[in-house]
Amino acid sequence: MSLGEAEKNKKAVSYDSELRQDIVTGDWVVIATGRAKRPDEFAQFQRVAADDAEDPFENPEASGQEQDILIYRRADGDWSLRVFPNKYPAFSRGRTARELSEGPYFAMTGAGYHEVIVTQDARRSLALLDVWEGAEVFDAYQERYLALMNKKSVNYIQIFHNHGKEAGASLPHPHSQLMAIPVISPYIALELTGAERYYQSTKRKVYGMITEYESETKKRVIFENEHFIAFCPFASRAAFEIWIVGKRANPYFERITDEEKFAVAEALQRSLYSLYQGLNDPPYNFYIHTAPCDGKDYPHYQWHIEILPHTATWAGFELSTGIEVSTLQPEAAAEYLRSQLNS
Amino acid sequence: MSLGEAEKNKKAVSYDSELRQDIVTGDWVVIATGRAKRPDEFAQFQRVAADDAEDPFENPEASGQEQDILIYRRADGDWSLRVFPNKYPAFSRGRTARELSEGPYFAMTGAGYHEVIVTQDARRSLALLDVWEGAEVFDAYQERYLALMNKKSVNYIQIFHNHGKEAGASLPHPHSQLMAIPVISPYIALELTGAERYYQSTKRKVYGMITEYESETKKRVIFENEHFIAFCPFASRAAFEIWIVGKRANPYFERITDEEKFAVAEALQRSLYSLYQGLNDPPYNFYIHTAPCDGKDYPHYQWHIEILPHTATWAGFELSTGIEVSTLQPEAAAEYLRSQLNS
Repeated sequence: MSLGEAEKNKKAVSYDSELRQDIVTGDWVVIATGRAKRPDEFAQFQRVAADDAEDPFENPEASGQEQDILIYRRADGDWSLRVFPNKYPAFSRGRTARELSEGPYFAMTGAGYHEVIVTQDARRSLALLDVWEGAEVFDAYQERYLALMNKKSVNYIQIFHNHGKEAGASLPHPHSQLMAIPVISPYIALELTGAERYYQSTKRKVYGMITEYESETKKRVIFENEHFIAFCPFASRAAFEIWIVGKRANPYFERITDEEKFAVAEALQRSLYSLYQGLNDPPYNFYIHTAPCDGKDYPHYQWHIEILPHTATWAGFELSTGIEVSTLQPEAAAEYLRSQLNS
Repeated sequence: MSLGEAEKNKKAVSYDSELRQDIVTGDWVVIATGRAKRPDEFAQFQRVAADDAEDPFENPEASGQEQDILIYRRADGDWSLRVFPNKYPAFSRGRTARELSEGPYFAMTGAGYHEVIVTQDARRSLALLDVWEGAEVFDAYQERYLALMNKKSVNYIQIFHNHGKEAGASLPHPHSQLMAIPVISPYIALELTGAERYYQSTKRKVYGMITEYESETKKRVIFENEHFIAFCPFASRAAFEIWIVGKRANPYFERITDEEKFAVAEALQRSLYSLYQGLNDPPYNFYIHTAPCDGKDYPHYQWHIEILPHTATWAGFELSTGIEVSTLQPEAAAEYLRSQLNS
């Protein structure tokens, strides 16, 4: 059969497919519901069992962790949160970045800081913590951010949290990580450029536009309080992706107020709890995106949190194009997660 | 203990960490060998068993696949390769892209083409094919590319291959996929911009610079023939990443010659075989990066293949920053893979 005949013979197919553009970066995602599952079917993914090894964070000193950088204690004297250097740092502490180029290529030493932020209870993930305990985590994030942001060769600080083995958590004991690095992250650079471009063309801040529109239409909202709104973004890269964005224009995470720390801890806990409840404690990553600490101003940016549950495998198409394909509409995901909080 | 004391008490650590910059895009990777494994230890990762279900590609018509768009036959009449539409397309065939915006957000219908390219033997992956069989795969890639590149609402064509369940291959029968889409992929846009920037500042083509330098120094080379060079890129995003780049300046994959098809099939087969042999048939994705088919010229770009084995989990840091952390030096990876071909 010739190619022409094949083309002639083809039948019309009616799978729905939508290309949605990220309003900040301009990147694309595909929402293709042809292979659609019901929201609750996403809970039935294959799970890798956690290693049942000893917990090195139960008693950090005894298990050979380095000395605490920061420790918070309860009234009874027991610790509730501690921060110490990562035993296997991706960046080498206290060094000055030194050029390591080769031929046409540019490289430098990986100078920076890599720390671990551990909450005491090995069994309660952030989805299960009280709001005050979550606020304490944000206290620690902020305290370490402020301590590192002016260090030599620190230009960006990335705070993130891996939950579940499939999401890269090598230990089941809940912990966040902080990396203070000499370069601006490429993803942040895209958001900074996008936020600036949006402002120049509309005279409006793009994250303000998003929070207002989502708060008004409500169809992608999971949780909202006075200071923060948690919603499935219009151009979700994975089913059940969640963003948490503040209502006060503020590019810089480190300028979060105490009141806001409680509000964001509540929004994060509610979001993670909706995933825990609705998807049977799925693996996820969440992270803070904030303006660089490189001495420049980024007035049109907005710090925020992104939660990315591992609901799909990014394969050849996603890895080659940077366009993620999701099989669930963000509106359906939000409706499902919202219903978990009301039940 | 105060923060100051903690800072004073810290010991110098000596983990090696290096930030390497991708010469094309300007993006960063971290090579952190503190947690280093020997190259052969990467073969010992946990593997998800393939489903032992029926093979819908053994007899595509009988299993309800749509009619072939293209079929190659052997002398004995049996098929050796066929192309048909993906049963669950991410893009809807034969439609014109239509705007689907909502409030401040932009979206459009996912118009395009999504095809599957299947080789006959269910058990022999591309690593195990003869070179002429591999060349036939490139024949099919080119033939379908040419047939689709001028279609309405096709501006970019992505050809890719998923191998192994962890790499997103839903079926073990070897198959590639082609998606013809209305938008330029963000990753291609980064490479086009980078190639242009490099040319403007040096008056040299960046991919020509890379192939010449790698061919000369040889330390990252896995395989080389008259027309192509396969090597672990200086800024590898994952252990054992491989790029295959042509020696003739050519931005457009569809202009590959017959002689080059044999040469690239040999380079790809040798590269995949070195992974198969050295890492115990690991899961991987490979894909072609080529200039868009949007009617514009991209004279300083170069089409090429990237092979990304699943040797690491991209977790919170990678997903939040776009900076990948790898624990193996590309030079050590290349030496190991090279040795697989000589044994």
